[in-house]
Amino acid sequence: MKLGAIDTPALAVDLAAVERNITRMQGYCNEHGLALRPHIKTHKLPQLAKLQLQAGARGVTCQKIGEAEVMADAGIDDILITFPIVGEQKLARLTQLAARRRVSVVADSELVIQGLSRALEAADASVDLLVECDTGQGRAGVQAPQDARRLARLAELLPGLEFVGLMTHPLPDGCGDWFERATALLAEDGLVTDRISVGGTPTAHRVHSVAGVTELRAGTYVYGDRSCIANGSVAEEDCALRVHATVVSTPTATRAVLDCGSKSLSSDPGVVREGGFGLIVELPEATIYELHEEHALVDLSACPRSVSIGDRVTVIPNHVCVTVNLHDEVVVHRDAEVVERWPIAARGRLR
Amino acid sequence: MKLGAIDTPALAVDLAAVERNITRMQGYCNEHGLALRPHIKTHKLPQLAKLQLQAGARGVTCQKIGEAEVMADAGIDDILITFPIVGEQKLARLTQLAARRRVSVVADSELVIQGLSRALEAADASVDLLVECDTGQGRAGVQAPQDARRLARLAELLPGLEFVGLMTHPLPDGCGDWFERATALLAEDGLVTDRISVGGTPTAHRVHSVAGVTELRAGTYVYGDRSCIANGSVAEEDCALRVHATVVSTPTATRAVLDCGSKSLSSDPGVVREGGFGLIVELPEATIYELHEEHALVDLSACPRSVSIGDRVTVIPNHVCVTVNLHDEVVVHRDAEVVERWPIAARGRLR
Repeated sequence: MKLGAIDTPALAVDLAAVERNITRMQGYCNEHGLALRPHIKTHKLPQLAKLQLQAGARGVTCQKIGEAEVMADAGIDDILITFPIVGEQKLARLTQLAARRRVSVVADSELVIQGLSRALEAADASVDLLVECDTGQGRAGVQAPQDARRLARLAELLPGLEFVGLMTHPLPDGCGDWFERATALLAEDGLVTDRISVGGTPTAHRVHSVAGVTELRAGTYVYGDRSCIANGSVAEEDCALRVHATVVSTPTATRAVLDCGSKSLSSDPGVVREGGFGLIVELPEATIYELHEEHALVDLSACPRSVSIGDRVTVIPNHVCVTVNLHDEVVVHRDAEVVERWPIAARGRLR
Repeated sequence: MKLGAIDTPALAVDLAAVERNITRMQGYCNEHGLALRPHIKTHKLPQLAKLQLQAGARGVTCQKIGEAEVMADAGIDDILITFPIVGEQKLARLTQLAARRRVSVVADSELVIQGLSRALEAADASVDLLVECDTGQGRAGVQAPQDARRLARLAELLPGLEFVGLMTHPLPDGCGDWFERATALLAEDGLVTDRISVGGTPTAHRVHSVAGVTELRAGTYVYGDRSCIANGSVAEEDCALRVHATVVSTPTATRAVLDCGSKSLSSDPGVVREGGFGLIVELPEATIYELHEEHALVDLSACPRSVSIGDRVTVIPNHVCVTVNLHDEVVVHRDAEVVERWPIAARGRLR
């Protein structure tokens, strides 16, 4: 089946571009002796996680236990869950996961560490623990190196947990100094920081310049998106995932309506604050200036040509991770020939 | 099971509030002799569509054929699809749908009307057609009453279609005049405008003041959201759908992290341009100032009390329709006792 024959709106992935992106990021990590642990939040597909592992990735990163369960069910081992695990139901699932796979988790509080330890000890299971550090992003994470030391000591004392290192996201300036101070404090307690794990595609290219970092978690690089084009991390021709859409209305000479609204493209702006909700590859001068749930409104006034109802276009989304999360299936192609259709197995695994 | 025991993040619906919302909107339509045709894009549930029909709704409105198929499979009849149907695959599905259910569709172009007619004639099927009119919103729809006349005449001439009226969304000022001019033009051709259908919850309360309107399509009223609170269409106590979330991190005294990010709450601002991404019912002074994919960042600086890791909160989303679209299941409760869990059957039916 030709790619142009799939019904719209739909996600389509260019497998050759995915392979280029995987090769490039793995090559960077190999060159600098970094472990690559791809974040599966972007593609949510065991098939692509396996390609990443075959290329040399150390393991995978998941945000939710439900995502990790999907990966484990597909046979994938060595899973890092980079979200605080809180609550008895999630702890019970974690212990089941830890019984069949190598698992590491993060924590930024005594409460989370104590909860993990209690549940894991009761199940006679064990996981590796990284202390999450807020090195400047202002999201989760301990605020100062002495807090990392305190939590590492606690984890080391309690059963069910083995302290292995530190984790942050993304890679702000000063991150290296932060980790240097923390590892020095930890060393005073005889604690070895085996892993220092950092995340993010936009800052991935300079991870090697930060002393001490051992591991890169990146997700978006596998597909790329308009935010990646803007921050220079993925070129337009390597943006592997596109939303295929159809012109369904041309109410005026300069306004067209596409069938990909916020429920298939997402209204998340990503880091692209101007220029609309996605790049129409065939009409680069056009702007998707407004999204309704099922309608994308396109301003054609800067375009050298017009469009007709029934015309097909492909859109590179602003933020590909949230776009993927809206779809149940991705159409996989090589040279515009459909080769597979994959259910997005870890989509909607919110817990 | 108590509502407070469900794992988070999760959608929970207060069935008593839903019933109040359905009763109120149906009462308004009954009082003014309007047909109510609820838009199922909000709840995407056959169960609630049936409650709406039992309360007196004329039929349902869907945006996509896939949504209509789910409703038809559940036994629901009289379905209006308010999105231009373009492409052979969708036309084939429409003809199958029309063979088993009463269906009406909209069009704002000759191309769409010709496509519909060709497919329906070939299948020996027929649907009612409303001409979509852009009465001021600037989305899809014909631009002037004479264009509505032209399309109505075409539909009336072609096989497989019966022209029945006009449709718009939402209800801008001047909408009544627009329809008056259009119906007068249509009357010159002997065309009777049986249905004038308008949409939208925010403007629903003044539909009766627009002469000629026969039908209201509204969706959001069934749940309400923060946009509805802001525009006065649904009160906070009637907001029936809430995202249940857990505090998973308290990095600073004034910053908390909830486990409901843009993948469970949606970063769609709705009409609420200030005050963050959703209302935390238990902490009305708090602001969800930033959403990442799985993290909601909360500013507690204006709150009289703090929160702890493990605390549960409930969030009224800014725009409930896109929030629902992110979840596979909704937990249904009465008086905080879980009574049902419904799969969101029409979620992700993008085509």
